[in-house]
Amino acid sequence: MESEFVRWLRDRLGVSPNLVVGPGDDAAVLRAQVDSESVVTCDLLADGVHFQLDRDSTQRIGHKALGVNLSDLAAMAAVPVAGFVTVALPRKHGLTLAQQLFEGMQPLADRYELAIAGGDTNTWDGPLVISATLIGRTTRHGPLLRSGARPGDQLVVSGCFGGSLLGHHLDFEPRVHEALLLAEAFRLHAGMDCSDGLALDSSRLAEESGCGVVIDVTIVPISEAAHQLAGQTGRNPLDHALGDGEDFELILAVPADEAERLLAEQPLDIPLTRIGEFIDQQGLWCVQDGQRTAMRPQGYLHGATDG
Amino acid sequence: MESEFVRWLRDRLGVSPNLVVGPGDDAAVLRAQVDSESVVTCDLLADGVHFQLDRDSTQRIGHKALGVNLSDLAAMAAVPVAGFVTVALPRKHGLTLAQQLFEGMQPLADRYELAIAGGDTNTWDGPLVISATLIGRTTRHGPLLRSGARPGDQLVVSGCFGGSLLGHHLDFEPRVHEALLLAEAFRLHAGMDCSDGLALDSSRLAEESGCGVVIDVTIVPISEAAHQLAGQTGRNPLDHALGDGEDFELILAVPADEAERLLAEQPLDIPLTRIGEFIDQQGLWCVQDGQRTAMRPQGYLHGATDG
Repeated sequence: MESEFVRWLRDRLGVSPNLVVGPGDDAAVLRAQVDSESVVTCDLLADGVHFQLDRDSTQRIGHKALGVNLSDLAAMAAVPVAGFVTVALPRKHGLTLAQQLFEGMQPLADRYELAIAGGDTNTWDGPLVISATLIGRTTRHGPLLRSGARPGDQLVVSGCFGGSLLGHHLDFEPRVHEALLLAEAFRLHAGMDCSDGLALDSSRLAEESGCGVVIDVTIVPISEAAHQLAGQTGRNPLDHALGDGEDFELILAVPADEAERLLAEQPLDIPLTRIGEFIDQQGLWCVQDGQRTAMRPQGYLHGATDG
Repeated sequence: MESEFVRWLRDRLGVSPNLVVGPGDDAAVLRAQVDSESVVTCDLLADGVHFQLDRDSTQRIGHKALGVNLSDLAAMAAVPVAGFVTVALPRKHGLTLAQQLFEGMQPLADRYELAIAGGDTNTWDGPLVISATLIGRTTRHGPLLRSGARPGDQLVVSGCFGGSLLGHHLDFEPRVHEALLLAEAFRLHAGMDCSDGLALDSSRLAEESGCGVVIDVTIVPISEAAHQLAGQTGRNPLDHALGDGEDFELILAVPADEAERLLAEQPLDIPLTRIGEFIDQQGLWCVQDGQRTAMRPQGYLHGATDG
């Protein structure tokens, strides 16, 4: 199934970019592709924040370190080209950890034809830190941005949401092929990946497009894990779906007629669901039983404080 | 995931003309330059290894984080284009630290027209970690590689060496302009920057070129700091110059006739010195009083062990 995907994409997108790496040089050399732009993303993962080394397998941590960045490339409908990984390894078992991290990265890199082209390995007395920077290239459709949603566009999402903490946040599959297929076959106005929470991220997409968004909370696809987690937390599964984050699914703004076609065709192996609409009125709204009310964005807020 | 610091920084630095950044998107978009290749480098700095937060000023740490990567671009005679910075900030004073780091980066970014185009800010219970990935572009001369030295080439270095631990390892100026000027005006066969020690790095350049190198240890330019440090350590200033590392000066392989012209012209504000020659015979050699003897590469060895 997947190789079919890859073949389909290769036929339409052309051969993966040439990569020239000087032997043991100070930096990797990438040959520029004419008629394409580069897309660059970076994310750092730290022990105790994004994973727990004493609980999670190192391979899964490696998978996540590449996966979150691949998901950012998917969010912009970009083809992965090259990755650069820096690590700060705990002194104890540092070499083994490094090998296991790369074991976790390798299948993803292979699957998405990403060349791990550079990196920096350090050993220290602190906990494990991994930072990855990925370079992708846009297709002839250009980068999918957050700023293109217009009132009347439908809010369409891939997959289901919530409860990622139970394992999905480590094991998720970045929606690289899905995003490329959708951008190739359908007219998309805007898109992003869901990392900080469905409600918060949807509101960001609306805000950066200068409009508002209303979510029909009765039709949000809720994952099995969200139900399971709700059983532990006593919260509503829907709350988990709207606010948990790290779903790494696609959030799209699709013109109404195109959305109709897309939802009827269901071109992916995972479901695409219309869960709302972009509207003139700024802000995040929810609709339930025909009632539209303002909604507080739930999700994970990044940044630093002096606390 | 873009952070407020990156936006803050971008507001101040502006965006370079060859860079297009979608507003608040998942990734930065770089417009490819026709007829140039991209050069990518990354380095991670960790508290207690590459700096000490309780002793060094945060601004100097920020300077170093960009500087080591700019030095890698200089090593390949590449023009800086865009930088991506990820940080793991200690919870205490995290916001202040982030601002001070970027205060230290800003003058360097301005001076070398590097756009800080993306990043990721995290807060955690661990010590400060900064990782930077820099993208540069080659000039019409292509990337300067380590593999082009040939027997008979002269070993030419910029500046002076040793004792960087006394402050230079934080305050050094990456030789970006110097490398670009030299690559434009002279025929260089190979080059790198000196980060792990003059002797070790020279031997690496020779090895990757498939030849050997002999250093005339009587003419190695020794820094004032090397003499000062030798006063504290009881070691020879020359040992510090050959082995300390983090000098971030250029090590070049220059054809003999071209080296003669280069040394006569002295086109830089810093001295260029011929300190040896590349030879047929593999290995690292030193010559003193007409005697050639094998030399053990001194310097800093990276990597991880399971110790």
